[in-house]
Amino acid sequence: MSFDYQAAFTKALGAVHSEGRYRVFADLERVRGRFPAAVIHKDDGTTEEVTVWCSNDYLGMGQNEEVLDAMKAATDHVGAGAGGTRNIAGTTHYHVRLEEELASLHQKEAALLFTSGYIANEATLSTLAKLLPNCVILSDELNHASMIQGIKGGRCAKLIWRHNDVEHLEELLSALPVSQPKIVAFESVYSMDGDIAPIEEICRIAKKYGALTYLDEVHGVGLYGEHGGGVAERDGVLDMVDCIEGTLGKAIGVMGGYIAGSAELVDAVRSYASSFIFTTALSPVLVAGALKSVQLLKAGQDLRARHQDRAAKLKAALAEQGLPVMESESHIVPLMVGDPVHCKGISDRLLNDFGIYVQPINYPTVPKGTERLRFSPSPLHTDEHIAYLVHALDALWTECKLAREEQPAPQVVA
Amino acid sequence: MSFDYQAAFTKALGAVHSEGRYRVFADLERVRGRFPAAVIHKDDGTTEEVTVWCSNDYLGMGQNEEVLDAMKAATDHVGAGAGGTRNIAGTTHYHVRLEEELASLHQKEAALLFTSGYIANEATLSTLAKLLPNCVILSDELNHASMIQGIKGGRCAKLIWRHNDVEHLEELLSALPVSQPKIVAFESVYSMDGDIAPIEEICRIAKKYGALTYLDEVHGVGLYGEHGGGVAERDGVLDMVDCIEGTLGKAIGVMGGYIAGSAELVDAVRSYASSFIFTTALSPVLVAGALKSVQLLKAGQDLRARHQDRAAKLKAALAEQGLPVMESESHIVPLMVGDPVHCKGISDRLLNDFGIYVQPINYPTVPKGTERLRFSPSPLHTDEHIAYLVHALDALWTECKLAREEQPAPQVVA
Ligand SMILES: Cc1ncc(COP(=O)(O)O)c(C=O)c1O
Ligand SMILES: Cc1ncc(COP(=O)(O)O)c(C=O)c1O
Repeated sequence: MSFDYQAAFTKALGAVHSEGRYRVFADLERVRGRFPAAVIHKDDGTTEEVTVWCSNDYLGMGQNEEVLDAMKAATDHVGAGAGGTRNIAGTTHYHVRLEEELASLHQKEAALLFTSGYIANEATLSTLAKLLPNCVILSDELNHASMIQGIKGGRCAKLIWRHNDVEHLEELLSALPVSQPKIVAFESVYSMDGDIAPIEEICRIAKKYGALTYLDEVHGVGLYGEHGGGVAERDGVLDMVDCIEGTLGKAIGVMGGYIAGSAELVDAVRSYASSFIFTTALSPVLVAGALKSVQLLKAGQDLRARHQDRAAKLKAALAEQGLPVMESESHIVPLMVGDPVHCKGISDRLLNDFGIYVQPINYPTVPKGTERLRFSPSPLHTDEHIAYLVHALDALWTECKLAREEQPAPQVVA
Repeated sequence: MSFDYQAAFTKALGAVHSEGRYRVFADLERVRGRFPAAVIHKDDGTTEEVTVWCSNDYLGMGQNEEVLDAMKAATDHVGAGAGGTRNIAGTTHYHVRLEEELASLHQKEAALLFTSGYIANEATLSTLAKLLPNCVILSDELNHASMIQGIKGGRCAKLIWRHNDVEHLEELLSALPVSQPKIVAFESVYSMDGDIAPIEEICRIAKKYGALTYLDEVHGVGLYGEHGGGVAERDGVLDMVDCIEGTLGKAIGVMGGYIAGSAELVDAVRSYASSFIFTTALSPVLVAGALKSVQLLKAGQDLRARHQDRAAKLKAALAEQGLPVMESESHIVPLMVGDPVHCKGISDRLLNDFGIYVQPINYPTVPKGTERLRFSPSPLHTDEHIAYLVHALDALWTECKLAREEQPAPQVVA
């Protein structure tokens, strides 16, 4: 009898359901000019206004008037899409200028755009691995799925070092032949925990053993450093990082990805990476928007300060109620739940009873048993937004009898 | 001594240079409303107007006023980017509606958007291969790089069948156990040769041996079939194809990719595919533009007829001069050169002396020795455009002493 494909798909979906991690996408429309407000479309056909607490448009740049104007102007000027791959009619002057701007942001010779940050990681790591004979990649154990896919695609040797553990990294590096090409791949801000890598220390060790350094600044670009060049700029170590990877889809507020590095490194990836070569180029509309956004963010010190302030304020307010906010050195505020069903349940209640939208973060995004709510306060979240969120969480925590960090004084729940 | 990375990159680039296939991207700006005209930025800082002959915005929809208006309206309504992955704040009502529209276009239960057609192929094929135990993929030998990457990523058994050779396909299928899950993966229009797969015959054989059928309609969507559903719609065999993959970046004129299939197949890919899950969702601006474009193309019979007419006219005009136009059943018009240096040389001369922009197609996009120029006439290319192009090619063919198909009468060259 021939194979039953539908049954196989149903079975695969059954596994997802039974682990409580079947995902239902919230159908959302942000309301321009009123970020963090959005309208949610419910299953019954009705709509409702909610406050978004989990967007990665960290600074609200995706709603910035100048960015939107740049996009509309590009639409009027050149049209909707690139109309081809980068090599075949798909390179516009916007692409050329944004690549220059990004190279300058990271103080590198060159930059290269990709259709997403995911593809930037996948394409670059797999290509570097293939171009460097007998290469080994040393990868932080919490690296993003896109880096892991790139490393797998490179079909080279891989060593995993314990998260942010520089001693372990050195142990692994020191055991490798000096002459063997090595790539140390890691992130600056780990987006689900909110911790930050010791970039200088990692680079120092990598250099000591002759390794190339590859840094994913997806959650750092625009948010740290005097010009928004990321944590490596903040720490003054841009020159120690050989290849920086970023996204145009988070703090920059648009969509797309990139790398920045030496002219040769970038040109080699440009010339060899399948997922760069064989795909329609980024729409010039997006590129124009990102270009404006990067330019604005270079002078965005106030926005960055306000962003950090909001995050600090939210963390303090949660801790005050004994809510188990995870230790985070960054702008990301994760709250541990530790169970996929509860995590989803609280998220549903926040949405339905309080008009607060925060997605449950379940496996495979985080390890099983560490399911959490992940808040991303923006400069546009007010004190009132914060107070209302903490009030709602406090009520649900009590109702669901969830653990607190330390027992707060009993609360009167509305 | 530690490894010299720069030297390795320089060496890799040297190989590309020495094979005459180093790519220099033309820096282009299309001029909205005047497609196929564009302005090219030259190295010396000057600009010049050219006629684009190699865009994959096949119908000029990327310049369609209604599409551009839809994008600008979405920009005003919701802003620049999605602000998150599909699961985390990145699904907008535009995404939901476009997925419904695409499912209906291909007469399937469901559809799923990806950031590109490349990712649609990569994500879907690798995920299907992983979900179907002991799966084998039967892949046409000319399948696109993105399908190949997906198949590799699935780490399953792979069999290559000779291009469009149904007998070879049947030979391979008949040798496999009936109960083993199998995927027959192929394209409708092969974009570098312009030939079209015998979809009905392939599906009939696949079904006979219990295989799932996977069809890349990237160069067919919008262009064939009563509603622009692709070659499978034209041939009346939509129900024989289990999974259809398409792009929003070619005939639809914007950017992005998708699949359409049964509810279970689509949901399984949605729930398991890394490159779908862990990436910022398509910008709602692009989605709004694509939605409008698909709606317009559903009623685009006249545009499709004019498109085919232009292609036929160009093919005839080239053949009349004995220029080696390759046999093509589709809207794609490839002209064989057979040498990378000549191919690039003619393309450069066309650009510099005639203001005609057509990119040389060299390895790795096509096999070495089959380098070609590839023209994509649109409904907006006039008789005059065609006559001028053929005149220019004729002159260069004579000057470069390139082979003709049959000797034409001697021409007076301007
Ligand atoms: C650390 C990290 N790297 C890369 C990516 C991929 O970037 P993009 O969303 O632009 O594909 C993400 C998230 O999406 C991420 O969190
Ligand atoms: C046959 C085929 N499939 C898939 C793709 C990828 O689609 P996209 O450009 O949307 O990434 C392309 C070209 O780019 C293609 O030619």
